[in-house]
Amino acid sequence: MTYRAPLADITSALKSAAALPRAIEEGLFGDLTMDDVEAVLAEAGRFAAAVIAPLNRIGDRHGTPFKDGAVTTPPGWKEAYRGWRSGGWNGLAAPVEWGGQALPQIVNAACIEMWHGASIAFADGPMLTVAAIDALQAHGSDELKRTYLPKLVSGEWAGTMQLTEPQAGSDVGALRTRAERSADGTYRLKGQKIFITYGEHDLTDNIIHMVLARLPDAPPGTRGISLFLVPKFLVNPDGSLGARNDIRAHSVEHKLGIHGSPTCTMMLGDQGGAVGYLVGAENAGMAAMFTMMNQARLAVGLQGVGVAECATQQALAFARERRQGRTAGMAATQSAPIIAHPDVRRMLLSMRALTAAARGVCYATAITLDRAERGTDATARQAAHERASLLTPAAKAFSTDVGIEVASLGVQVHGGMGYIEETGAAQLYRDARIAAIYEGTNGIQAIDLVTRKLPLSRGATVAAHIKDLRGTVDALEASNNAAFGLAPARLAEAIDSLARSTEWLLGRLDKDADAALAGATPYLRLFGFATGGCLLARQALAATRGGEDAAPPAALARFFAENFAVQAGSLERTIIDGAPGVLGAEAALA
Amino acid sequence: MTYRAPLADITSALKSAAALPRAIEEGLFGDLTMDDVEAVLAEAGRFAAAVIAPLNRIGDRHGTPFKDGAVTTPPGWKEAYRGWRSGGWNGLAAPVEWGGQALPQIVNAACIEMWHGASIAFADGPMLTVAAIDALQAHGSDELKRTYLPKLVSGEWAGTMQLTEPQAGSDVGALRTRAERSADGTYRLKGQKIFITYGEHDLTDNIIHMVLARLPDAPPGTRGISLFLVPKFLVNPDGSLGARNDIRAHSVEHKLGIHGSPTCTMMLGDQGGAVGYLVGAENAGMAAMFTMMNQARLAVGLQGVGVAECATQQALAFARERRQGRTAGMAATQSAPIIAHPDVRRMLLSMRALTAAARGVCYATAITLDRAERGTDATARQAAHERASLLTPAAKAFSTDVGIEVASLGVQVHGGMGYIEETGAAQLYRDARIAAIYEGTNGIQAIDLVTRKLPLSRGATVAAHIKDLRGTVDALEASNNAAFGLAPARLAEAIDSLARSTEWLLGRLDKDADAALAGATPYLRLFGFATGGCLLARQALAATRGGEDAAPPAALARFFAENFAVQAGSLERTIIDGAPGVLGAEAALA
Repeated sequence: MTYRAPLADITSALKSAAALPRAIEEGLFGDLTMDDVEAVLAEAGRFAAAVIAPLNRIGDRHGTPFKDGAVTTPPGWKEAYRGWRSGGWNGLAAPVEWGGQALPQIVNAACIEMWHGASIAFADGPMLTVAAIDALQAHGSDELKRTYLPKLVSGEWAGTMQLTEPQAGSDVGALRTRAERSADGTYRLKGQKIFITYGEHDLTDNIIHMVLARLPDAPPGTRGISLFLVPKFLVNPDGSLGARNDIRAHSVEHKLGIHGSPTCTMMLGDQGGAVGYLVGAENAGMAAMFTMMNQARLAVGLQGVGVAECATQQALAFARERRQGRTAGMAATQSAPIIAHPDVRRMLLSMRALTAAARGVCYATAITLDRAERGTDATARQAAHERASLLTPAAKAFSTDVGIEVASLGVQVHGGMGYIEETGAAQLYRDARIAAIYEGTNGIQAIDLVTRKLPLSRGATVAAHIKDLRGTVDALEASNNAAFGLAPARLAEAIDSLARSTEWLLGRLDKDADAALAGATPYLRLFGFATGGCLLARQALAATRGGEDAAPPAALARFFAENFAVQAGSLERTIIDGAPGVLGAEAALA
Repeated sequence: MTYRAPLADITSALKSAAALPRAIEEGLFGDLTMDDVEAVLAEAGRFAAAVIAPLNRIGDRHGTPFKDGAVTTPPGWKEAYRGWRSGGWNGLAAPVEWGGQALPQIVNAACIEMWHGASIAFADGPMLTVAAIDALQAHGSDELKRTYLPKLVSGEWAGTMQLTEPQAGSDVGALRTRAERSADGTYRLKGQKIFITYGEHDLTDNIIHMVLARLPDAPPGTRGISLFLVPKFLVNPDGSLGARNDIRAHSVEHKLGIHGSPTCTMMLGDQGGAVGYLVGAENAGMAAMFTMMNQARLAVGLQGVGVAECATQQALAFARERRQGRTAGMAATQSAPIIAHPDVRRMLLSMRALTAAARGVCYATAITLDRAERGTDATARQAAHERASLLTPAAKAFSTDVGIEVASLGVQVHGGMGYIEETGAAQLYRDARIAAIYEGTNGIQAIDLVTRKLPLSRGATVAAHIKDLRGTVDALEASNNAAFGLAPARLAEAIDSLARSTEWLLGRLDKDADAALAGATPYLRLFGFATGGCLLARQALAATRGGEDAAPPAALARFFAENFAVQAGSLERTIIDGAPGVLGAEAALA
């Protein structure tokens, strides 16, 4: 299972779906040029393909043995992590102030796709460190930042996010880990956390845990949650490591996939209390979490893109080599590469088109994060922030659903070989499955999209998005290019379905929220199909305008529209007509 | 992971989708009564739940270690197999003449669903023995039958089917294993077979391999294939075991799932030649294979139903227990079982509805096999044979796709717990994946449906099927029952889409076969949605007529129509408009 960095596809999506050149022209990124961006991506692609990708099978086979409280990462992982640090990849988008390179989120997103394309299990660790950096950067005191940020940004230390408890999964507000105030201004934490990614490992000397906990006098639910920094080893005033803190891994899960990523149950305070430092204000922990949610969810969406890309590459390579059967006109003694068979071709095109569409949705999200952060005026920043908030659940859920579907198609293209673990397709199918679950299940994303994001600016945020999509279809129709087949019509219909479904849902939120919730998942899919389809069309139009070979992106845009966007009408029917059949089906679930 | 035999659902599907009582009334099955059938099913359900199901996790964990040419089945499997034999389950549908019970295929199908619901890995072995019995029964000489059938039917010996070779997967005609005529009328086989299910194991004293091979003077392709019986141990005239034959397992595959089912690479003739006995005529091996294909493919379809049923039971149980979040009106300190959340309810209803629809399609197929075998006049038998041929690829592919989708939803309902192997949902997701691949990939099924089955009787076979579906919708409309919601309209539209797509494909087969092939997979799905949806409606109508509680089947039929059958229109568009975008997309696959 090799992975090749798909630099041409990535660059093309950066230019069209994310319109990065325009953002550069607008001066959003100082003196950064597209040449700089491409140089960074080429180097990242080399590292992903040459250093990370070879670890993926090794991690799957070795797992992360747990003994006496310690986790051993698979062979070669420490060396790769050293390369990761020395390459500066850990701080790509982190502030210069703390040793980062402050590159745009969109450039980081393209790199994140490649890290995960090479190995989700490896890239999971740095992803969590970046999440810890974001939380600390946004909400930590100056002292905490000075003590921890330089070493987190350099990757000398790693980070974790600790939300989940046995009774508190999707319902974070149900968490019970307690934090008691200590006389010295710090806190003592006691409790249990589960499903903690890279909760313990041997890649770094220290691990900085960001832990959600509840003060004794906190109100119930999410309003009573505070965020704490809990280091594995306390840090002395001179920056050296001090005493071992009272937070320990209790066990490592035996999972379906991402075996190289240690998923830990953590015990806090078994010996009196883990020392924690408050990040942000007391009882404001959920707000602190939410500020970095957009980026973490986007990163998981990019896992879907990465794993889909890897599965697609592998299936294409297999389908070109493997010969079975004959196409029309071949002699009985001949055999054709299976890529020549229409049904296999359908599978491969589905893989390519879904992957490219999910990439477009994720990149479009990433650039709005940059605009929200760096836009020149406050109105534009606010609009971009809302657009990013709208797109994020789709980027996360649509792309991770795509990751699973494409990985499953990858198994199928391989036939019997796909079911054999040595081939590698099966690992991708197992690895891909997690991304629809963690960082908020895809159901939670759909609910977030419908109940929190559609109402942003009283519907104006989603309306602006739909208007942008219509603009693309107008351009597509104006191009009058037969290579697009029925794409203009199918995308126009999909946008109409999206607009009507949006309006219907917005009308239900106040008076009949359950009806809106019943349609949340099909709505997110409709949103993904319409958006992804238009972004593929934009890519093909940009290639035409740029004098590049527009045939490949046009063929993909066409296939996506005629096979996926075409489902919009039935999804609309399910959303608008389907709620009574979901909500009134007690009898069928008894 | 427990499995409970879904006897009520099975009986209901037997009565409606298969119309078993009518077939009994017609005298198809002698003096068999519904009471007899239900007694058999209850006993089978007990065996599946109490004896087989507990083995499933054990098999997954232990696998089938291979050493010095021998396979060790997981702990407890030998004992369970003894119970299997002594219960008479091995010969349920086999001829009385050879010790079987000659029960209808439809009753056997319901049992097969339960065996696989309890453990695909365990049930795979007997499934292959039955396939060997079928081939021998249909094509073997009297001497071969006398020697082998009694012990295969009793289960004292097991069977295998050996088609696949490294260069011959979907393209069976490419196989190279050679069979040379010997002076004594037997043959000597040399070659290699791969992916041989239960090719070696310790459950029985002898294993009877049914091997496809090629005579030295055979024509190329499928017309030059012959079928041979190759026993692991030769059998002496008195029935006792003689010399070890020259066929041996060389290795066992490391697979994504069904770890308890040993998948072997077999070497024939390493020590001069494996002794084989011709089954049927020389060069008529493919025909011999095809006669039993319908039943074997149906059995794999039932794996999809079984695994979907098991995943659904598990997810429902979890969703009733697991509490997270609140529904409208609950206090902040309360929490609701997740089954109360509309999005979870959508997942569970999808699981139930897809499972029931696939069951309906499989049972409708099984009863047509009985009618093909036992119908009172030749015309009816021929019509039933063609109907069974039409339905079989849909039963296989639609149901196994359902198995994968439902198992994946099962993981999702469990959230993070679903990704942990101990929960069991992940195993079902891994196990389910094989059924879309073996016994002819689902792509091959779709091609078979479109290119070989639609043209049967110049389209009259599929037309009769569509007419039957319309009859159900007419009855549904006439029932005028609000509980069906939009199901009458959605199903009527789906049948219209199916009829138009069928006509379009039939019109392409001669002049533009590639265009038809490009639409084969979406057509099979459309066929499954329309057929499955109507069979669910029939089930609800039957419950109403029978004075039973029609609310559960009506709610399921409604949900299926409004969420799955509703996709028919977009599938039709993909089939009829989509071929140029598939066939002309060279650029996107370069």
